[in-house]
Amino acid sequence: MESRRNFITKSLLALGSTAAITHTIAANERITTNIARINIKKDAVILFQGDSITDAGRNKENMQPNVANAFGNGYAMLAASELLNNHASKNLAIYNKGISGNRVPDLINRWEKDTFSINPDILSILIGVNDFWRTKDSGASNSPAQFKQQYQQLLEQTLQKSPNVQLIIGEPFAVKNVKHVTEDWYPDFPEYQQVTKEIAKEFKATFIPYQSVFDKAEKHAPGSYWTTDGVHTTLAGANLMAQAWLNAFK
Amino acid sequence: MESRRNFITKSLLALGSTAAITHTIAANERITTNIARINIKKDAVILFQGDSITDAGRNKENMQPNVANAFGNGYAMLAASELLNNHASKNLAIYNKGISGNRVPDLINRWEKDTFSINPDILSILIGVNDFWRTKDSGASNSPAQFKQQYQQLLEQTLQKSPNVQLIIGEPFAVKNVKHVTEDWYPDFPEYQQVTKEIAKEFKATFIPYQSVFDKAEKHAPGSYWTTDGVHTTLAGANLMAQAWLNAFK
Repeated sequence: MESRRNFITKSLLALGSTAAITHTIAANERITTNIARINIKKDAVILFQGDSITDAGRNKENMQPNVANAFGNGYAMLAASELLNNHASKNLAIYNKGISGNRVPDLINRWEKDTFSINPDILSILIGVNDFWRTKDSGASNSPAQFKQQYQQLLEQTLQKSPNVQLIIGEPFAVKNVKHVTEDWYPDFPEYQQVTKEIAKEFKATFIPYQSVFDKAEKHAPGSYWTTDGVHTTLAGANLMAQAWLNAFK
Repeated sequence: MESRRNFITKSLLALGSTAAITHTIAANERITTNIARINIKKDAVILFQGDSITDAGRNKENMQPNVANAFGNGYAMLAASELLNNHASKNLAIYNKGISGNRVPDLINRWEKDTFSINPDILSILIGVNDFWRTKDSGASNSPAQFKQQYQQLLEQTLQKSPNVQLIIGEPFAVKNVKHVTEDWYPDFPEYQQVTKEIAKEFKATFIPYQSVFDKAEKHAPGSYWTTDGVHTTLAGANLMAQAWLNAFK
């Protein structure tokens, strides 16, 4: 297994020497803005983790990798199907262990069982909307600073156990003025989003900027085309997310 | 609505004048080999029809277009999600009405209810594997000639009612030596496949050559990677089909 630093260096080199020279100063920025391409090795194990957006109605009794009904019908299923098709000779094992309603502390509680047991080479996490949302709809106490501390704890544990795992961190997103996502979400929610950007940078993860992906998509169709309720995706929105996620591999 | 002939001419022109001149003689061939690009207009209604491979576990109570659980988790769902994302400004309505076990006579019986009522601009049909298979596993009597006659009847009715519909005909496929698909399928099954090619040419449909798509895919991974039983797709196989289908639009 190569070190995290080697992985970054190799990713930069893979961009070609000219690009690497030109952009050396912005290396960290590049890592966190999804330009460092993730290389998929033979026999790689890939795990999607998160909340309901990742869960997407998956059959939780089905523990097999690469199987449609263990994936639900969200972005993870769409992205997995494309990786499995495009990297057919690599013997990939792809899992979805997203669970509806989860916040970071829930991930910490089930990390041994649902992540370390799978020992992924590539770990994709999308979490945070419930960490914020419960402070609005259930009076939960959870500041952006607390959220950050919890997320750091999760990733420190992860890297301690799996120092070579390639991390992908998805930005929690909200589509304004669609059902649940009212004015009341602002300006607070963006602070939680900002935390995930900082976390991605700190832990040298590939960052998928879903908020700007959805913002741009609204130029083509209204928010209700992409999400059913401001938070959960339509079929179009799931594909939008999957393409953004897959972009990290291209 | 433009005429069928105009559509073909426009498709050829869209290939660029050089290509059109060079390949004029092969125009019909091109139509049936998936090179004529289908243009998706604003407000287009797109309908997937077929058997279990199209059905893919869809919720048949859900009559809404563009909704994940009304699509199941097969190629139709994957292809629909990509069209909805890539053509977001076009206000598409995409339906899946595939039903497990169907043969051509079943389509004829439910065509009024499940196709004409939806009045699609683009109609994609994948049928034929059961028309053959029941002759093997249930002693049904159905020759390739009978299959052809039934398929012609279906499409004549379709074009009578909807003369401007853009037809897509998928080749029924089988992945040899995976579970159900034994030596016993040959040389008979290819005769039914040949019928669908002829039908596509006769009715100027875009033909998706799924058999060669799966044959090529076996260079990268074994048949059991692409189908669970020789007939139904895995997650990888569903993506393989979706990409082949989407290729008609690119």
